[in-house]
Formats: sequence, C-alpha cells, structure tokens
Amino acid sequence: MTDTLPDAALDQLFRTARTYNGFSGEISDETLHQLYELLKFAPTSANASPARFVFVKSAEGKARLGAALSEGNYDKTMSAPVTVIVAHDEDFHEKLPFLFPHTDAKSWFDGPRENREVPAFRNGTLQGAYLIMAARALGLDTGPMSGFDNAKVDEAFFAGTSIKSNFLVNLGKGDPATIFPRSPRLPFDEAARIV
Amino acid sequence: MTDTLPDAALDQLFRTARTYNGFSGEISDETLHQLYELLKFAPTSANASPARFVFVKSAEGKARLGAALSEGNYDKTMSAPVTVIVAHDEDFHEKLPFLFPHTDAKSWFDGPRENREVPAFRNGTLQGAYLIMAARALGLDTGPMSGFDNAKVDEAFFAGTSIKSNFLVNLGKGDPATIFPRSPRLPFDEAARIV
Repeated sequence: MTDTLPDAALDQLFRTARTYNGFSGEISDETLHQLYELLKFAPTSANASPARFVFVKSAEGKARLGAALSEGNYDKTMSAPVTVIVAHDEDFHEKLPFLFPHTDAKSWFDGPRENREVPAFRNGTLQGAYLIMAARALGLDTGPMSGFDNAKVDEAFFAGTSIKSNFLVNLGKGDPATIFPRSPRLPFDEAARIV
Repeated sequence: MTDTLPDAALDQLFRTARTYNGFSGEISDETLHQLYELLKFAPTSANASPARFVFVKSAEGKARLGAALSEGNYDKTMSAPVTVIVAHDEDFHEKLPFLFPHTDAKSWFDGPRENREVPAFRNGTLQGAYLIMAARALGLDTGPMSGFDNAKVDEAFFAGTSIKSNFLVNLGKGDPATIFPRSPRLPFDEAARIV
C-alpha cells in the first residue's frame, strides 16, 4: 500500500481527462514503446497477456484501417497521429510456458479455440483499458471507439491468424474544440453497493 | 495533452504494483466512494457505463461469496478487507437517456438481451480495469481473480436481475510475503507492431 497520488495526477488520469474527437501532434516510435513498457505490467489472468496491439501510423496503414470505419469515426481517425488496434490472440495459451513458467498453465486452456474466446476477450479488453490509462499517464490524449467493422479489420490486419480485433484508440494531442460538456455519470448508489 | 506523470506515479500504477495473494488493513466506505468517484469518469462506449460493483466487506457478504470461490482463491479473499464483484448490467441501455442525453442512444441497443452481451462485457471489463488502476492511484493494493463460479455469484448477489458477474478484485494492504518474483512479459515485438 502506498500514498494516494497527488490531485494533479488523479485529474490527468480520471477527472479532467476526456475522450477527444479530433487530434493533432506527432507521436514517436519511442513513445509507443514507452506506452507498451508501462501497460505490459498490469495484471491479466495467469499473466496470459493476450492483447496484441497494432499502432497504425503510416498513410498506408491508415488507408487500410479507414475502409473499415463507420462514417462518424473516419475523419478523426485519419487525422490522429496514431490509431491503436486493440486486439487479442485466441491462441494466447501457446505463450504460457514463457509467461507463467512455474506450472503447466497452457494445459488449462488447451482444446477448441472457442473455449478461449471469453478469457482472450476479457483479458485483452483489460489490457486495452491499461493502454488508455498508460497513455494518459504519459500525457497523451485518447479517443477509444467501437464503431467499425471488426471482420474487415481482421481481414486487413490479421488474416490467417488467431488474432481478433476488439476496439480502437486514437492517440495524440486532443483538440478541445472537438469535445462537448462531459455527460453525466451514474451516482454511486445506482452503480455500486457495499454489503 | 499534458506532461508525463513523475516516475514515482508510473511505478505506483504500473512498474512496481503487483497482484497480491494476501491482504490486511481496513478500507472505509468513504475510500470506496472515492474509488468509484474516480473510475466513473473513464471512458465507455456511448458513456453506457454498464459496470455494476458490489463491495463485499461484511462477514455475511464474504460467506455468501466464499461458497462460489475456487479453493485457491478462498483464503486470500476471506482475509481481504474488501472484495469487489465486478459485474455488468446486460440491460445497461435503459440508463442511456440519462447517460447520453443528446441523442436516442437507447434505440441503438434495444432488442433481445443477447445483442447487448458483447458491449456489456467489453465495457464492464474496461471499467473493471479502471477500478484496478484507480485503486492503485489511491494507494490500495489489488488482487484481481477469475477463478470462481460465476453462476453461483449471480445467484447469490444478482438473482432476478439482468446483472452478470465478470471478475473479482481483492483490495487492501498487500502482504509482500504472498508474491513471487514477477513473471516475464512479452517483448514489444511479440505483442505489438507499428505500421
């Protein structure tokens, strides 16, 4: 147990951070490596780490991605310095002898691929959230999105593999003109209880 | 865009934070409210905020939860000051007129409940990850777990509702004697690429 982070950090991570709809700036490959080197430490079941990330940065990559986007997500994604495809490997268990070396965890997940869909999706999604929080911790603004054709993205980026796309995250310097006043959140008693 | 958080904060959130297998300490209801008041701000699709959290703190609540736990998760959960049931409401769309007031987002999700399973699970899982990060930001140690009988937890805590359990998170002061050396993580090139 440690101290509470200073208010400025809680603001940057949660309270004043926003989902932007327009981005500018540049993001170096070094920053993308820093981002991964933070998020990789956050927890997954049996350390399985099923998330796979494609950092789409080039014009060619953006064009391939653009063909799968819903209309409302197109312009902001094309203009963002980087768009991350958050995906997960449904054959993540193949790496467990390396990731969880002290027992035979791979055997827990052997068998038909459909039996791994739920843990791959759950833990890959956790890692997508860690990416959002790590990006904010590094001072980047984020714009996560679900509005796209997953099958088209899978065909364009993961054909012939066991990797499935989950959601997208734009990264960059958010344009304050592209956000609205923050929408309401549920009060504690509608989302939580203490028993 | 803001500055990178200081190294001490990045350590607390990612680099030195660990998943503990034994906990002590006490957590006030006020701290649980602070935790929710941070995590609630992090993003979900259409601000749908489908996660529902049960903070299990009382002996009676722990006993109800204990009956659903796998053997390896029993002792650490019984001893933790608080165990959070991270769940999600598959009828989350009913709250969209409040949460996303500028358009009729509820109509996007109307129809059979099974059509809402994926967005409820994805966004509820994101919020579970935000809870882990918010707890660390508040100086709490965490112990997320998937090893339990979801149907039993649903029956014990969510009977007759559209709420489904997802995973559990122990909270408290982690006992350093209950962790092993950190397991390896995938190198960047095995989990990510830049295109």
